[in-house]
Amino acid sequence: MSIDPVKLDRLAEVAVRTGVNLQPGQDLVITAPMAALDLVRAITVHAYKAGAGIVTPFFTDDQITLARYEHAPDDSFDRAPNWFFDGLAQAFKGGAARMAISGDDPMLLAEQDPAKIARLSKATSIAAKPAMNPIVGFEVNWNIVAYPSAGWAARVFPDMPVDAAQGKLMDAIYKASRLEGDDPVANWADHTAELKKRVKWLNDHSFSALKYTGPGTDLMLGLADGHIWKGGASPALNGVTCQPNIPTEEVFTCPHAYKVDGTVSATKPLAHQGSVIENIKVRFEAGRIVEASASKGEDVLQALLKTDDGASRIGEVALVPHSSPISQSGTLFYNTLFDENASCHIALGQCYADTIEGGSTLSPEELKQKGGNQSIIHVDWMMGSDAVDIDGITKTGDVVPVMRGGEWATG
Amino acid sequence: MSIDPVKLDRLAEVAVRTGVNLQPGQDLVITAPMAALDLVRAITVHAYKAGAGIVTPFFTDDQITLARYEHAPDDSFDRAPNWFFDGLAQAFKGGAARMAISGDDPMLLAEQDPAKIARLSKATSIAAKPAMNPIVGFEVNWNIVAYPSAGWAARVFPDMPVDAAQGKLMDAIYKASRLEGDDPVANWADHTAELKKRVKWLNDHSFSALKYTGPGTDLMLGLADGHIWKGGASPALNGVTCQPNIPTEEVFTCPHAYKVDGTVSATKPLAHQGSVIENIKVRFEAGRIVEASASKGEDVLQALLKTDDGASRIGEVALVPHSSPISQSGTLFYNTLFDENASCHIALGQCYADTIEGGSTLSPEELKQKGGNQSIIHVDWMMGSDAVDIDGITKTGDVVPVMRGGEWATG
Ligand SMILES: [Zn+2]
Ligand SMILES: [Zn+2]
Ligand SMILES: [Zn+2]
Ligand SMILES: [Zn+2]
Repeated sequence: MSIDPVKLDRLAEVAVRTGVNLQPGQDLVITAPMAALDLVRAITVHAYKAGAGIVTPFFTDDQITLARYEHAPDDSFDRAPNWFFDGLAQAFKGGAARMAISGDDPMLLAEQDPAKIARLSKATSIAAKPAMNPIVGFEVNWNIVAYPSAGWAARVFPDMPVDAAQGKLMDAIYKASRLEGDDPVANWADHTAELKKRVKWLNDHSFSALKYTGPGTDLMLGLADGHIWKGGASPALNGVTCQPNIPTEEVFTCPHAYKVDGTVSATKPLAHQGSVIENIKVRFEAGRIVEASASKGEDVLQALLKTDDGASRIGEVALVPHSSPISQSGTLFYNTLFDENASCHIALGQCYADTIEGGSTLSPEELKQKGGNQSIIHVDWMMGSDAVDIDGITKTGDVVPVMRGGEWATG
Repeated sequence: MSIDPVKLDRLAEVAVRTGVNLQPGQDLVITAPMAALDLVRAITVHAYKAGAGIVTPFFTDDQITLARYEHAPDDSFDRAPNWFFDGLAQAFKGGAARMAISGDDPMLLAEQDPAKIARLSKATSIAAKPAMNPIVGFEVNWNIVAYPSAGWAARVFPDMPVDAAQGKLMDAIYKASRLEGDDPVANWADHTAELKKRVKWLNDHSFSALKYTGPGTDLMLGLADGHIWKGGASPALNGVTCQPNIPTEEVFTCPHAYKVDGTVSATKPLAHQGSVIENIKVRFEAGRIVEASASKGEDVLQALLKTDDGASRIGEVALVPHSSPISQSGTLFYNTLFDENASCHIALGQCYADTIEGGSTLSPEELKQKGGNQSIIHVDWMMGSDAVDIDGITKTGDVVPVMRGGEWATG
């Protein structure tokens, strides 16, 4: 068994039609690992069939990345190609849509110096801001899908031959991406309707905080003033309704960056920039992480939290039932696109402006007033399980069950 | 026999050290066909070893290119990603060096509509101007080398299995790129000294015109006012001495765009944008091509000449002895980097500003006054052979033999 080309082609078509929902005449910028070339080729065909103006793919290559860590002079790690990100920003201002292919080997940088990784990551994040702002601010339609690269598949299914592991990971991506059956477009319509039902219930209640209780977790998580729950397909500011993540199982909103108190224990390892961080535990005071530990990769975690002021506060809170298909697969993907959709999570760093009412037109200072966090990072971090209960706290102090044992408390 | 990795690595090292002569801390932008990934990886390693700041490679892919021709809407062919070229221009302004890998299948677009090819080429050339100006103006150090891709090798050696053809083409590139022996750096120093000797002789004579005589060729080619002959390694405006082409056998200068009269017959087919143009014949009047024909690909030639005002005038004249190693190999490469170095040639389109005295600081209008041609194209075009004689005409009307039977007339 290796990667089924029919499945790959369907993934490409759904990513173009349902994911990014590319419009006739719209340009498309793709970023992808070199290993995902087959998928990029298929996406390009479907994009032009959908009427794309220009499809421009950019590739990263594992060996080229490693060559930098192994041979570049030290000050290379504080630098990034600003001119490239400025070019991308210009593309999005000009109306281009964005697709990202996920599928890098999660352990690629495992042998590299964590300090260099942190420095390069910070330099890149700062340089990339002009290109990331239109995405984070949902100004253009965008989408991220996954490709079962050999490096990634070998981490997820280490006991199989690589070929077979890639085939099995393709099948897992296919299933999680709801491509099974006769009509994946209908699958996605049904799924979006279900997510929208949860979104509506949460927005109707307009909780001021969520309270989490579970093993190693006792957290009062305030929500931002004017926060809005979102989930599933929604329109970008350019008017195009897109499905940013494939797969997606979450409903999410903006926490209050200064009103989070208590302790949280991660329920899954976090694959971050080529390292795996295990058994994260943190304590919040007034929104800031004041204590953090991990049984593995703690130096990477500590460096991450020190990236900038907002890196030790959270910018996203997301709810995912424990019965989600990705969670039920029992597979640990070492990939945020999948693992975050298997579990309730929070994200360190940057908030999504559009999860605060009118947020897209607010200045950073105004967003902060409402509790929206600002940072150059956004790192999702899994803390849900079938042992976690969540209550909503209303503005009048009432307590409403939201999740029980990892499942929605209301049908 | 397939591509010898030791030879490939030496090509990469010489391209970095002798070709682009990358400086410590300097960034490097690479453009390459996807098929040349191995060479790009090797170049990246040598670039970082040489102290590169950031190496940023961009890849084009044959299948992605064909997907556009096969599936894109019609108006895609009048568009180009300006934002990408603007980003590149910013990189060069910031001091980045440039490498290009040549090696595309010369017949990739053979089945595509020539009108679409011409439209897309024109749109791309116009958009690319900001990125090409620092290269054409020699503001930064740059280099182009070749990779024996399967598609290209199969055209050059059509009667061999592809693997063997790639190995044979690698050997031909290796030899033509003067990488044989113990010390390729010394090879290049010797070769540059030889080219500089020719350059000096030509500059000392300061001819006002060259007269070409041969089968189907009777041409009086005026040289630009203040023209300078160049060849081999020379310093870019940023002070870095580089070897722009590997291989290179030519000495070249700026013709007078308004003082070329007579007829010329091409001596080799011209591979241009996926088509091969055979048996080109043209007639010049006052610098402009007023008649043009070809036994094959004439529509491509005619479209090329109509690209803009300067496309039917010439911007480069180059002398290459018939005994050059590339010429003696007898191989037709269908690739300008090689074929132009097997033969005397002229180039339709843009002149190199630095082949006119003080040209880099002149306005386009001032360049034009001196005879420097302006165009969005620059297409080299082979018209030398062992049957062509060339005389230099001095300012006082004396006739000095320059080449006889395709060889330098003086030792
Ligand atoms: Zn999330
Ligand atoms: Zn997130
Ligand atoms: Zn030339
Ligand atoms: Zn040329």
